Amino acid sequence: MAGFPKPVDDLITQFSKLPGIGRRTAQRLAFHVISLPTDRAMEFARAIIDAKEQTSWCPVCQNLTDGQVCVYCESSNREQSVICVVAEPRDVAAIERTREFKGVFHVLHGVISPSSNKSPDDIRIHELLARVDKGNISEVILATNPDTEGDTTALYIARLLRPFSVRVTRLAYGIPIGGHVEHADEATLLRALEGRREI
Amino acid sequence: MAGFPKPVDDLITQFSKLPGIGRRTAQRLAFHVISLPTDRAMEFARAIIDAKEQTSWCPVCQNLTDGQVCVYCESSNREQSVICVVAEPRDVAAIERTREFKGVFHVLHGVISPSSNKSPDDIRIHELLARVDKGNISEVILATNPDTEGDTTALYIARLLRPFSVRVTRLAYGIPIGGHVEHADEATLLRALEGRREI
Repeated sequence: MAGFPKPVDDLITQFSKLPGIGRRTAQRLAFHVISLPTDRAMEFARAIIDAKEQTSWCPVCQNLTDGQVCVYCESSNREQSVICVVAEPRDVAAIERTREFKGVFHVLHGVISPSSNKSPDDIRIHELLARVDKGNISEVILATNPDTEGDTTALYIARLLRPFSVRVTRLAYGIPIGGHVEHADEATLLRALEGRREI
Repeated sequence: MAGFPKPVDDLITQFSKLPGIGRRTAQRLAFHVISLPTDRAMEFARAIIDAKEQTSWCPVCQNLTDGQVCVYCESSNREQSVICVVAEPRDVAAIERTREFKGVFHVLHGVISPSSNKSPDDIRIHELLARVDKGNISEVILATNPDTEGDTTALYIARLLRPFSVRVTRLAYGIPIGGHVEHADEATLLRALEGRREI
C-alpha cells in the first residue's frame, strides 16, 4: 500500500536515473512536474522529444547540431585549420564564452578512463585523426580537463598526432584568475610552476 | 554563435525551471538526456505525460491518485475516522514508511506562508473542514513540519477544528532517534524539553 500511484513512481524512477539525482530529489522533481499546469508539463515532455529528435552529432566535429553540419564547421568566419579538442559538448560552450577562440572544435564525447571502462575506441579519436589526415589543419589544441583522465587522453592523442605535420598544444593550467597562491591546492600550484613563463 | 542549438537550449531551460536545479546542472541533465538512446529519452518524456495525464488529486483527501478515490480513502483496512494532515504528497510516503499508521490522510498542498504569499485559502483547509463536518472523524493528527510555517498552519487548523468534537493532536518533535543531546540544536532541544514525558 505504501508508495505512490504507478505513473508517479515511474516518473520518480526516470528522474532518479539522471546523473547526480538521488531518490529523494527525484521525488521532489516528480511532484513538482505533476503539480505544474498541464501545458507546462507537456512543454517539458515536448522539449525532451524535440531535443532528441531535432539534434544530432555534427559529422565533422561531433558537436551537437540541429542542422546537418554544425554552426562552427560550416562558418566561413572560423579558422577551419585550428581544432580545439574537448571532452564534452558543454566544454564547447565554455570555450565560446571567452569570445576569443576563432577556430573550430572536436568533441570526443568522453575521455579515456579505465575506471569507467572507456577505451580510446569508445571516444571520437578516430574521427579526429581522419580530419587531421585530410590535411589543412595547422593546430590541434587539446582542451581536456587537467585531471588524470584528461591528461592521459591528451597525451594519447598527442602521440597519435605526432606523424602529422601539425602543431599540437595543450591549454595552460595554473592558478585561476582572482585566485590566491595561498589557497591554491598543490596540484594546481605544481602546474602553475611547471607552466611558468618569462615576464 | 555561442550557445547551443535551439532544441538543446529549450531543454536546458525546462530543466532549469525545476526547483533546486541551477543553469549548470540543467545543462548537464539536458546533455545526458540527449545522449540517451532514443527509446530511453522517449520513455522519460512519456513518463512525464503519463504522470500528468493519469494522476489526479483524490477528491476526499487531496492525495495523488491514479484512480478515482485514492488507495487509502477507499480501503476498508484503514481507519477512516483518523486523519493525518500533511503538507505535501511526499509526506504521505514518509508516514507510510513507518508501517504503523492505520488511518487516512489529508494533503494540504502547502502551508500558510506569508513569505510565499500562501494564505489559508490557498491550501486545502476547506476540504479538511468539510470532511470533519460530515462526521465520523475521531482524531485529526497535524503532521506539518516543526518550523514557523508548519506550526502556524497546525495552530490555525487546530483553532478551526475546536468547534467539532474531534481529538486534535500534533506529531511529537524532539531529538531524533540516534541523535545526541550534545549535538541537538536549541530549537530541537526546546521542543524535546517541552514534550517531555513521565517514564
